[in-house]
Amino acid sequence: MTPSKWSRISRETLLENPYYRIVHDRYVQPDGEVGDYQYIDIQGSAMVIPVLESGEMILVRQFRYLMQRECLEFPAGGIREGSAPIDTAKEELMEEAGFAARRWEEIGQFAPYSGASNEMCHVFLARDLEFVAPAPEGTEEMDVLQLPEARIEEKVVLGEIWDGMSIAAYHLFRVWRNTTNG
Amino acid sequence: MTPSKWSRISRETLLENPYYRIVHDRYVQPDGEVGDYQYIDIQGSAMVIPVLESGEMILVRQFRYLMQRECLEFPAGGIREGSAPIDTAKEELMEEAGFAARRWEEIGQFAPYSGASNEMCHVFLARDLEFVAPAPEGTEEMDVLQLPEARIEEKVVLGEIWDGMSIAAYHLFRVWRNTTNG
Repeated sequence: MTPSKWSRISRETLLENPYYRIVHDRYVQPDGEVGDYQYIDIQGSAMVIPVLESGEMILVRQFRYLMQRECLEFPAGGIREGSAPIDTAKEELMEEAGFAARRWEEIGQFAPYSGASNEMCHVFLARDLEFVAPAPEGTEEMDVLQLPEARIEEKVVLGEIWDGMSIAAYHLFRVWRNTTNG
Repeated sequence: MTPSKWSRISRETLLENPYYRIVHDRYVQPDGEVGDYQYIDIQGSAMVIPVLESGEMILVRQFRYLMQRECLEFPAGGIREGSAPIDTAKEELMEEAGFAARRWEEIGQFAPYSGASNEMCHVFLARDLEFVAPAPEGTEEMDVLQLPEARIEEKVVLGEIWDGMSIAAYHLFRVWRNTTNG
């Protein structure tokens, strides 16, 4: 039997750290030739759009080492092995922003970096929020902000919100709301 | 002199392929300790939002090996060494969709994967489009589509457009237009 196009022939792990593996796949190209692919193999992630009664949203400001500057982002994190996306969403909302929520809804998914990572990000809307605890110690670089949508969009235009995942998640929320009137 | 927080102490290249390097940085954490960071070191990318006279946008359908399914995306690609973002934008619009454009404008930037890659994606609006040539050979998996915005948003909701970079770029276009009435 000829292997079908795009199917994997072999996989090897090139390196591993606590967050992901770099793997090297050999696969069948559409033209039948063998292709090589090196990419991030990772569990997936969850991002939370926390919406207050007022309509304001909760974002966290953090310093991104790779860009050497601060960004405003929605709370998010990688899904741990054996954990469900919703559990990660709840943990990140609490750990990064200090909030719990009584209403949760998964409103969409997207692949943030589909050329070089197999990560799928699950986007959750969190409502009926309750402030539980200040963000834990050690996160001195993380501030929690509450912003109305108009200010969020302004900050996207100004380039103060430059995290692609937060922008994509926000857009998913917008189209989800238009569709559901939720 | 004490090194300032977030500053790099050392860098080593862990592996290299034609598209990017995996590097390992040691850096100064906010608490003064030495942190380790392994990430994708890459040149940056350009994504094009091609808008026709009718308001329809041009997207390409391609199979994404890492997700083992098709996605609709805006034309995009990595910036080659020594190349400017706008040149990459022009090349990708031609190579992936077969179009040239007479009006170009950079409408924003975002970092698609700021936790594990230093890539910054430059988003260009391309107008006054002209169909020049069918997509070149070897890209048999790539179809070119023209869609109105309503259909694009529908496909985001339906999960047919699941590429985070395309969703973020589309959102940048929307807020850019709202701001400029462009």
